[in-house]
Amino acid sequence: MIHYTQRSSTGEVKKMERRSISDLGEFGFIERMTPGCIVDQSRVVQGIGDDCAVTRSAPGLLQLVTSDLLVERVHFLQTTISAYQLGHKAIAVNLSDVAAMGGTPRDAYVALAIPSVTPIEYLDDLYRGMKDLAARFGVSILGGDTSISITDIVISITVTGDVEPEHVLYRHGAREGDTIFVTGSLGDSAAGLHAVTSGYSSDDDDARILATRHCQPVPHLAQGRVIARSGWAHAMIDSSDGVSSDLNHICDRSGVGCVIDEGALPISGEMVRYAGRHGLNPVALALHGGEDYVLIVAGTRELAAETARHSIELHAIGVITGGAERRVRRADGTFYALEPRGWDHFSSEKSPRTLPAIHRPSM
Amino acid sequence: MIHYTQRSSTGEVKKMERRSISDLGEFGFIERMTPGCIVDQSRVVQGIGDDCAVTRSAPGLLQLVTSDLLVERVHFLQTTISAYQLGHKAIAVNLSDVAAMGGTPRDAYVALAIPSVTPIEYLDDLYRGMKDLAARFGVSILGGDTSISITDIVISITVTGDVEPEHVLYRHGAREGDTIFVTGSLGDSAAGLHAVTSGYSSDDDDARILATRHCQPVPHLAQGRVIARSGWAHAMIDSSDGVSSDLNHICDRSGVGCVIDEGALPISGEMVRYAGRHGLNPVALALHGGEDYVLIVAGTRELAAETARHSIELHAIGVITGGAERRVRRADGTFYALEPRGWDHFSSEKSPRTLPAIHRPSM
Repeated sequence: MIHYTQRSSTGEVKKMERRSISDLGEFGFIERMTPGCIVDQSRVVQGIGDDCAVTRSAPGLLQLVTSDLLVERVHFLQTTISAYQLGHKAIAVNLSDVAAMGGTPRDAYVALAIPSVTPIEYLDDLYRGMKDLAARFGVSILGGDTSISITDIVISITVTGDVEPEHVLYRHGAREGDTIFVTGSLGDSAAGLHAVTSGYSSDDDDARILATRHCQPVPHLAQGRVIARSGWAHAMIDSSDGVSSDLNHICDRSGVGCVIDEGALPISGEMVRYAGRHGLNPVALALHGGEDYVLIVAGTRELAAETARHSIELHAIGVITGGAERRVRRADGTFYALEPRGWDHFSSEKSPRTLPAIHRPSM
Repeated sequence: MIHYTQRSSTGEVKKMERRSISDLGEFGFIERMTPGCIVDQSRVVQGIGDDCAVTRSAPGLLQLVTSDLLVERVHFLQTTISAYQLGHKAIAVNLSDVAAMGGTPRDAYVALAIPSVTPIEYLDDLYRGMKDLAARFGVSILGGDTSISITDIVISITVTGDVEPEHVLYRHGAREGDTIFVTGSLGDSAAGLHAVTSGYSSDDDDARILATRHCQPVPHLAQGRVIARSGWAHAMIDSSDGVSSDLNHICDRSGVGCVIDEGALPISGEMVRYAGRHGLNPVALALHGGEDYVLIVAGTRELAAETARHSIELHAIGVITGGAERRVRRADGTFYALEPRGWDHFSSEKSPRTLPAIHRPSM
């Protein structure tokens, strides 16, 4: 039980109490969170409640597995993201990795370390956010682990999925002459991070929309499937660390270079207006701001017609070159180097990892 | 870089420095830890280095997935377990869950949140511990995630595996009249925890052996396979929270009761001697002390002959009954209730979760 005092409008001090996770106990917690975790029973033999989850695998498909951590005071602050949004985002960032392989996500495993004073309502909201996004994409939560922690919330989620061997897309495989595409606007999340950390008024619609894009990214799973099955794509990654870093991975793994066209970067009206009002550089946000969770694809031009047929947004932003160059072309035809200035988790000094006034270690 | 001072034997103060994880950077860290992660290339299409790991699944087998968290200051203290042992244990506790289903572990995914000042040598040792134990059981480390954390180390590992549909063993399935078996001695780990937290002299062989059993448990994978394939077992679980709690799960899930025979509990000579010297109750340690990671099995008596043929240790400790009773029989024929006094992660007051002088929230 958490005890706290509240002062009423008449000045009266009331002693209040709120149930925390330690009032539930571990098994009470598991029992409370389990309903609604399985959304597709057909493949599930055993969900939450045994030593392992047990599933049937689809014959002939490749298995995909990805893990992503969210750490309090590193990836988020409780003051800038709601529990519901945090749950949503924790699932979304994992599903985005499955999307980036061209696959279909199947199951999620949630390992959660949480201070014992955490209110039950906070956990209810967290799980509601996880379950809502998971269910939207047919993903069941089949297990995980729970533990107390001394100070910070840590959410570690592992997601499994599958993909046809003939459709899987890696970071390697990009070829000279490929067009570089992205499946949505860039830099919205970085601008949204600026908005949530610096605060914004409730009538600032641009800031509100950008904040939602930052706190509740939607993984591009349908886009990934269409792109992978088209046969026109050669390499794919999701933009989590920032286009400059993520595209670098494709170039490194494929042994190619790239030229990005500044003028072709898809930048939303909300972001342009917000950046203008706060003295931020929209191009820098688009190139280096991470967590947009759009897909970055290298493929042939025919891909655009295929995605159009499926009403999927796709923007050509540059080309893959044969050399080692990674450059950005300005509107006036001059070039500058595309430096990977996205997120590096451990490097404190070697690379400028954050944009001016953008502090990534928080949502 | 971490700066610190060291006083030599002559009293001279030297300024020293040590490289930390922030000197490596995230990608330097991944590059450093990747060699030796894959021990069986045949099933692996893509290991560490893309958005997801990609593997081929075995046709006709059920897939197993399990996750376990280890949180600093909750599950361990850096002063009582070495980095190498911690890596070993983090893998072991997950493999033990696969053993408890009768399965074969395949791949591990390591999500690691770690303070930026952590010395590189600590991480080298941590990974060496993980890789050594994983390799011993043919398990490859295929991915995960890394993040800084502000205060504590959090290790979240997910392990996949598989098992034949006809051999998988759950917590449910125990039948009235089944014998309850365990595959090794009980309470050693709890006594070892007492030893590492209270300290012991280097010539105390009993304490040293018990401490190693606590810090470096070996998962009973071969035992689990033999038991599952025998056809004589009906339900199985690994003893992680303590026999009283873990056996309760089998009874709850199977809708049965149990009677444990105090005199039949397998208690090692080291534990009896250590408990005697420190005023601990060996029977209480055996019943409620967790983290032995032996298997608890309900099955027919024929199982003993089968395990003997494979030179596998097996001890009959009681019987499954038809009622709801969960009792312990003393040597004099009297009974007392078997209360689940093992570990509950969140419950602070409702159940006495630790033995006298045994503080579980630390190794």
